[in-house]
Amino acid sequence: MARIVMKFGGTSMAGIERIRSVAERVRAEAERGNEVAVVVSAMAGETDRLVQLCREAAALYDPREYDVVVASGEQVTSGLLAITLQGMGVKARSYMGWQLPIRASGHVSALIEGIDVAVLDRVFDEGGIAVIPGFQGVTGDNELATLGRGGSDTSAVALAIAMQADRCDIYTDVEGVYTTDPRIVPRARKLDLVTYEEMLELASVGAKVLQTRSVGLAMRFAMPLQVLSSFEDKPGTMIVSDDALEGTDMERNVVTGIAHDLNEARITLSEMPDRPGGVAAVFAPLAAENIIVDMIVQSVPRPGSPSDLTFTVPTASLSHAVAEIEKVREQVGFKEILTDTDVVKVSAVGVGMRSNAGIAAKMFETLAERGINILAITTSEIKVSVLIPEDYLELAVRVLHSAFGLDEERSF
Amino acid sequence: MARIVMKFGGTSMAGIERIRSVAERVRAEAERGNEVAVVVSAMAGETDRLVQLCREAAALYDPREYDVVVASGEQVTSGLLAITLQGMGVKARSYMGWQLPIRASGHVSALIEGIDVAVLDRVFDEGGIAVIPGFQGVTGDNELATLGRGGSDTSAVALAIAMQADRCDIYTDVEGVYTTDPRIVPRARKLDLVTYEEMLELASVGAKVLQTRSVGLAMRFAMPLQVLSSFEDKPGTMIVSDDALEGTDMERNVVTGIAHDLNEARITLSEMPDRPGGVAAVFAPLAAENIIVDMIVQSVPRPGSPSDLTFTVPTASLSHAVAEIEKVREQVGFKEILTDTDVVKVSAVGVGMRSNAGIAAKMFETLAERGINILAITTSEIKVSVLIPEDYLELAVRVLHSAFGLDEERSF
Repeated sequence: MARIVMKFGGTSMAGIERIRSVAERVRAEAERGNEVAVVVSAMAGETDRLVQLCREAAALYDPREYDVVVASGEQVTSGLLAITLQGMGVKARSYMGWQLPIRASGHVSALIEGIDVAVLDRVFDEGGIAVIPGFQGVTGDNELATLGRGGSDTSAVALAIAMQADRCDIYTDVEGVYTTDPRIVPRARKLDLVTYEEMLELASVGAKVLQTRSVGLAMRFAMPLQVLSSFEDKPGTMIVSDDALEGTDMERNVVTGIAHDLNEARITLSEMPDRPGGVAAVFAPLAAENIIVDMIVQSVPRPGSPSDLTFTVPTASLSHAVAEIEKVREQVGFKEILTDTDVVKVSAVGVGMRSNAGIAAKMFETLAERGINILAITTSEIKVSVLIPEDYLELAVRVLHSAFGLDEERSF
Repeated sequence: MARIVMKFGGTSMAGIERIRSVAERVRAEAERGNEVAVVVSAMAGETDRLVQLCREAAALYDPREYDVVVASGEQVTSGLLAITLQGMGVKARSYMGWQLPIRASGHVSALIEGIDVAVLDRVFDEGGIAVIPGFQGVTGDNELATLGRGGSDTSAVALAIAMQADRCDIYTDVEGVYTTDPRIVPRARKLDLVTYEEMLELASVGAKVLQTRSVGLAMRFAMPLQVLSSFEDKPGTMIVSDDALEGTDMERNVVTGIAHDLNEARITLSEMPDRPGGVAAVFAPLAAENIIVDMIVQSVPRPGSPSDLTFTVPTASLSHAVAEIEKVREQVGFKEILTDTDVVKVSAVGVGMRSNAGIAAKMFETLAERGINILAITTSEIKVSVLIPEDYLELAVRVLHSAFGLDEERSF
């Protein structure tokens, strides 16, 4: 017997027919003798609808009242799943965030402070299943709180930790985590195992299967996660710690996956004089405006000579960023602001890189062989990222996927 | 300064534009220096949608989970109205049924046991407005409860009583209570005042402006109600006790209004032998099946001779009632079951009837003059009802409205 949290996203809860197939899956898990708590999202599109209503009601809406409105979507699906399970003869009950309670601080993007699972222990003792709305909690002042978009993944992981579950299964509309986007590389392989850190890097560079925050939380408490399809009956991808990996996967590739992120825009400040505080004067106002700056590249040929400063920001923040930089033009003294949105960040990710020096070199070489120009480079312990012209996206991903031995072997 | 509960129905809350005009009205009331609590329904159509989802999920749904699902509609409109009020610079907050709390017993058609208004006193002390979802409460086991369809009227009246409000204003899509259906009689007048008892009779015979249960509750605690339009800025109809009426309206008509109800079907059991217990044998199974029997007419020409027994049931219960009666056919010994759905009940209602003997006689005479056949008659202290063929509905209502002096005086 195991304790399992099963989490289903909005696509899986979109309408009674889909809720019925979710219920079938939950029943099957319970019939294997497991203690099951289910965390559900609102029906696909419902949270957007509710957010839109708040925005129409007032441009600057009260976060507390926003939470009252948007928390209702998960309330509806929780009740409907409990009804559906009961209709199949399965003992089930829903428990709202304020009923357990799921204690949270703040509004709109509240943090979970703790979950009282005493009531769930009773439910399991009686052979029942608990259905719990994701995305919501209750504050110390007894006010409804929501966790921010995608927060249901975090609800599921937090509940799994509080319940001391053996595993948290995240059911979604893909079969797991892939070595790269299968729409670009048909021979992409579903990964059986990835580490939390790899998952964080893969998610932050565009392979958005799980909310980053939920992966960080699972990592901190070493809660095993599984990403799997709610529509097909197959094992998915297990997300585990480095330790858990040891010995299990001797022949694992050094590179685990190739990710890409189209949501980056490049800004270059040309002929920037080499003055003390010049670079700081550019980035300070961006930080003050909460604009996320990612890849930063500057090479000063010799001390005192002017140079170009290149960096990337999210495409949606580009015009905002340019306006902020214009304000410091005189102070910084650069010549021109050049921008480019037709760029893409491509990254090779893998914990194996730590003990393998040649990955970056191999990446540059592979791209150079195909004549792909690199506009910027950043590296971390388990990731090498390059910025390239968007036109080369598919080519770059394919050649890297192949060069790092990730292509699925097929027998013809 | 007065304490006022304002209640808005689903039509008034259907969409942000309408919620904005509700908010304008609430602000105006507060700006007159009044302490205001607002009770809201779900957006028009939303409760139906949620109920339908429950039905699709399982034919026999759990009442507890049904309440979880359907209570969400009012949660959404409460939050949206609070946001809209704040957007207009009005201090406002929503309080869910479980937050106040509104204590209730049971599910699906729960009864309100009490409302804790301590938090509202604080809100009013700080010059704020409280927005409260109608239709919902919380049980002693901390479960969500709903009050049954139309329950928001009852929520509003119960809250007004708990708050010791001076008045409970029910905003709706009509301008008040009329002497009769204005679609039938264009010269129908809006009533300035009706008594609780008159309102109960008018509602139960088809003038459905307020949920009957809410009127009964207001009567028990002598809470003044006002029915008025959420779309036009005019005084509505005050619903008060008999005492409050005294002296205020010397020239009030004996008859307050003419109501009608198409939702009745007639059943006649012909040539029923005059046996002890015969009538009881007919009605006992109907009562056991919760079929409401309304007008009952029997005249036995002489003891021992057979007679016809006529009564009415709601049209929706007709086939069910006939099936039940078939089961006792032999025991009762009637000849035939005759049914008729093309009938309508027309009623004259007014507290003045208590001291005025001639109303029934005048009613029969007026109908006879126009050749309208009366199929059954029932009377109560403040009401005379006749069952007539449906074809004569409009004619009967018009001639009675005129005969009892209810037509609006117009100057041409």
